[in-house]
Amino acid sequence: MSTYEDRLKALRDQLVRDRLDGFVVPLTDEHMSEYVGAYAQRLAWLTGFRGSAGSAVVLPQEAAIFTDGRYTLQVREQVDGAHWRFEDVPHTSVTAWLGEHAPRGGRIGYDPWLHTRAWVMQAMQALKEKVATLVAVDTNPIDRVWPDRPTPSTARLVAHDERYAGRSAADKRQQIADLLTAKRADAAILSALDSIAWAFNIRGQDVERTPVALAYAIVHADATADLYVAPEKVDKGMIQHLGNAVRVHDRATFADALKAMAGKSVIADPERAVAAIFDALEAGGATILAERDPAVLPKAIKNMQEIAGHRAAQARDGAALSRFLHWIAVEAPKGNVDELTAAARLEQFRRATGELVDLSFDTISGAGPNGAVVHYRVEEKTNRLIEPGSFYLVDSGGQYRDGTTDVTRTVAIGLPTREMKERFTLVLKGHIALACAVFPRGTRGSQLDVLARQFLWSHGLDYAHGTGHGVGSFLSVHEGPQRIATFGGGDEPLVAGMFLSNEPGYYKAGEYGIRIENLVLVEPRDVAGAEREMLGFETLTFAPIDRNAILVEWLTDSERTWLDSYHAQVLAVVGVQLDGEARAWIEAACAPL
Amino acid sequence: MSTYEDRLKALRDQLVRDRLDGFVVPLTDEHMSEYVGAYAQRLAWLTGFRGSAGSAVVLPQEAAIFTDGRYTLQVREQVDGAHWRFEDVPHTSVTAWLGEHAPRGGRIGYDPWLHTRAWVMQAMQALKEKVATLVAVDTNPIDRVWPDRPTPSTARLVAHDERYAGRSAADKRQQIADLLTAKRADAAILSALDSIAWAFNIRGQDVERTPVALAYAIVHADATADLYVAPEKVDKGMIQHLGNAVRVHDRATFADALKAMAGKSVIADPERAVAAIFDALEAGGATILAERDPAVLPKAIKNMQEIAGHRAAQARDGAALSRFLHWIAVEAPKGNVDELTAAARLEQFRRATGELVDLSFDTISGAGPNGAVVHYRVEEKTNRLIEPGSFYLVDSGGQYRDGTTDVTRTVAIGLPTREMKERFTLVLKGHIALACAVFPRGTRGSQLDVLARQFLWSHGLDYAHGTGHGVGSFLSVHEGPQRIATFGGGDEPLVAGMFLSNEPGYYKAGEYGIRIENLVLVEPRDVAGAEREMLGFETLTFAPIDRNAILVEWLTDSERTWLDSYHAQVLAVVGVQLDGEARAWIEAACAPL
Repeated sequence: MSTYEDRLKALRDQLVRDRLDGFVVPLTDEHMSEYVGAYAQRLAWLTGFRGSAGSAVVLPQEAAIFTDGRYTLQVREQVDGAHWRFEDVPHTSVTAWLGEHAPRGGRIGYDPWLHTRAWVMQAMQALKEKVATLVAVDTNPIDRVWPDRPTPSTARLVAHDERYAGRSAADKRQQIADLLTAKRADAAILSALDSIAWAFNIRGQDVERTPVALAYAIVHADATADLYVAPEKVDKGMIQHLGNAVRVHDRATFADALKAMAGKSVIADPERAVAAIFDALEAGGATILAERDPAVLPKAIKNMQEIAGHRAAQARDGAALSRFLHWIAVEAPKGNVDELTAAARLEQFRRATGELVDLSFDTISGAGPNGAVVHYRVEEKTNRLIEPGSFYLVDSGGQYRDGTTDVTRTVAIGLPTREMKERFTLVLKGHIALACAVFPRGTRGSQLDVLARQFLWSHGLDYAHGTGHGVGSFLSVHEGPQRIATFGGGDEPLVAGMFLSNEPGYYKAGEYGIRIENLVLVEPRDVAGAEREMLGFETLTFAPIDRNAILVEWLTDSERTWLDSYHAQVLAVVGVQLDGEARAWIEAACAPL
Repeated sequence: MSTYEDRLKALRDQLVRDRLDGFVVPLTDEHMSEYVGAYAQRLAWLTGFRGSAGSAVVLPQEAAIFTDGRYTLQVREQVDGAHWRFEDVPHTSVTAWLGEHAPRGGRIGYDPWLHTRAWVMQAMQALKEKVATLVAVDTNPIDRVWPDRPTPSTARLVAHDERYAGRSAADKRQQIADLLTAKRADAAILSALDSIAWAFNIRGQDVERTPVALAYAIVHADATADLYVAPEKVDKGMIQHLGNAVRVHDRATFADALKAMAGKSVIADPERAVAAIFDALEAGGATILAERDPAVLPKAIKNMQEIAGHRAAQARDGAALSRFLHWIAVEAPKGNVDELTAAARLEQFRRATGELVDLSFDTISGAGPNGAVVHYRVEEKTNRLIEPGSFYLVDSGGQYRDGTTDVTRTVAIGLPTREMKERFTLVLKGHIALACAVFPRGTRGSQLDVLARQFLWSHGLDYAHGTGHGVGSFLSVHEGPQRIATFGGGDEPLVAGMFLSNEPGYYKAGEYGIRIENLVLVEPRDVAGAEREMLGFETLTFAPIDRNAILVEWLTDSERTWLDSYHAQVLAVVGVQLDGEARAWIEAACAPL
């Protein structure tokens, strides 16, 4: 196996052959996916970096890797500082760095299937200062020098049953077609994998932790569609499932199909479709309407069947998690449980349900100081014992056919300090304030964010992540467009039927991390005498919140009432599924404060 | 005096002479001012509409006036429906309406000194559907047919003393120059009147309620400046005040000066500078940097002297308002006080301070149902008696050389109903929550807005206006860039030294209105053990909040403590200035709950 030094040299040699003076390496795929298949892990192959977000730029004399605050330490451990400069985003951006470091008059390559058009424009602008040009490559130069690059998955498409989906694919495509007609558009490009999975009621196994299949689609104003997918992934049953209104093509013909859309008005999403899609449409003479993928909002607003499925998944998942929490409560104080063991045990409990398709993301199993690493991913090197007197933070979820879960619990092992209890309680108060929010129709997630932070703020504390993200139905565990956050998104009005996480936290570097995360459903809320149409949240996740970590005297009466009634629900939904010692444990864990 | 019908006909005849098929009439001036001088009241002259925001479009066969929800009733009373169509914004926009109603292939005129470039682009786009064109006029056709149009004010410029301004004008212009250097710009155009007043430490009398002078300015990277102002407004003392680094020119030469900036990089603010400024710069060959007016942020962050001046103004203004509140408490229950009398009496109390230069806006003096009209302006026709069993809402402020005030109190006359007290208390709880907010540096006003609304929301209630706006120092009573609001602004991070209003409300149409408004100062906040740099608000306005309108049992202990301690401060700052019956009254009004 080649060293990272070899790989960097091989890429530079390839750039010389391609007559390029540099190349940009993002971490994404042709679908702007958050999680990508092994075949698209170019950044990891080139640099050794294993984080979930980053990019690199390779120039003849220097190379830089760009990561955000989450990975400041990790990138320095995984990537060789002798060959790579470390740059922090958003302090430095890739495009600004290019503007300063690109060789004068140079040709900087990029793969147009891995960037948005906005990025391309920005990079071109930045390169102007150096009279340098940005050059779209036909073949990614990394693919030429990566000998054992995995091929994209060939896993078969699977139909997503209507009893889970709640609507036929034909009905969904009709909804898109109606929208196209209203906007006087002829067609819409779907390139986001979860949009395609939703619109055709299909699922796949091509991407880790997300049950989607590599494909593209074009939906037309007459409600027919073209689906572009590797032929080996489609069997006869799938053809039948897709029906007559869907024409199936080889994924390799997609770009040519775009070029054949001359004279059509076509919706393409500037955030979700890559530059190459816009380029091909333009080259072919289509009129582009740069608008949001029409599947995004309908997908986010769950129907009754999806909500019912989600409730079933939550009851099942909550029981598995509660069994695990009981196990931790018994085993961890003995001092023999480490993070890896705990994560494996939790997965076992979920597998034992017989319904788990996959985890919905890599379990974050953080003992003591590792709990303070927000996007911690346990590996042999970092594996810690869960020790008495510490907090253990576990953020995990499952992919079930009826729903996707995501839950975080922070457990006190033995006796927490006064400070730990105070801060746990501040986080809990924020969680409760958000859970109890009542707000008028039209309210955006960003408006509610402060409710979860206000108690931490009053003590001069905060957390450096969002408060809530959307969640799919047997799809992405992070799903837009809704979001509850201080910055970056959060401008989408919340609508009844949306799922969101409610996950405030607090992290003391080197000591402990706290996060309390439940999923909630946006629902209409009847308020006596209301003058506006009001909405609220119904909490959907059921597992005990550690009573031993709470400073009870810091809770108001109504906060205590909320927690007691939440725990009563946990008992009713999850407790009844447990027996023996686990049952006795959860009854104690859910006793009123 | 001509009728409005005559005026509309006169304009249409002028349009024929100007070979135009339509004309757009906004309500603003060449400086995008919120309040405009009499010479710029073209919309009122043409239509009779007296509201503070609106526009009109005149076509050969039809004419429409566009107003927002605040003026739905008023516009129909003041404007003749036989000649004008009433259109509601934002439901219909002027540009969208033009796109539908403009005559095919027509030429629609606009005055480029009264629109932003963004508006011009939007209108051009909308007119494309009708193959119509947007034509910039050299002379506003209304000015040709308005025989007795007032000339712009010739009032002299007045120096704003450094003991109020806290900094020399040279120092301020150096700050702008440093910013220009950092941005590699040669100059910045200042066209907002309050920016110019701030940058040169000058004040004027050309606009109602705002002590600014009609002028333009260009500030250069060498910290010198050109000031364009009518020659008769500048005397020798002013020339001396402005100093050698400021070249004074006739205001009429400004456009030519812009055209002479060939080869320079010039900052112009797309929100604050009109299209004509951009057109002239472009025509002259300057490179335009479309960025925010560099005076806006420094002006919003008050220095120690401005803050000290503001405190003095507030103590004085609070005493005047408290005398008035005492007077209302004595007189209104007798049933003889109407809104006009009350507003005049309040102005008397302010004038009696001997320091009032002007009101900071027309007093909103709303009895009973008139209090529910958010932007109510009392006139003979609408004047009501202040009756027992009602709420009286008074929103008012003064312009003093040391500071600008803005305060709203809602007073229960006699016994309010249970519902009135409940809703007053919900508004008060929101006011207190915002007043007590502690938040990390970088927090934007929009994030805090929900704190003021949450209690109303939990009862299904809300208010349809922002929660807080910036305030100038002897300048505009509404000043950006900071703002606390749900929509429209609010994205500016709050910085220590900014003034903001804190003014939640509740309005029951046809019955009563409630608003509680104090001004607050953003200040650094020491929090023991804080991990972030924290900010908070110091309340600067001092006048009793009506204890008789409060449902005390709905306040938490800490809310009661806040109100009691606020009232103790009111006594200390304002109470000591009163004597006799007024003193006895304020002591009772400020007694602990």
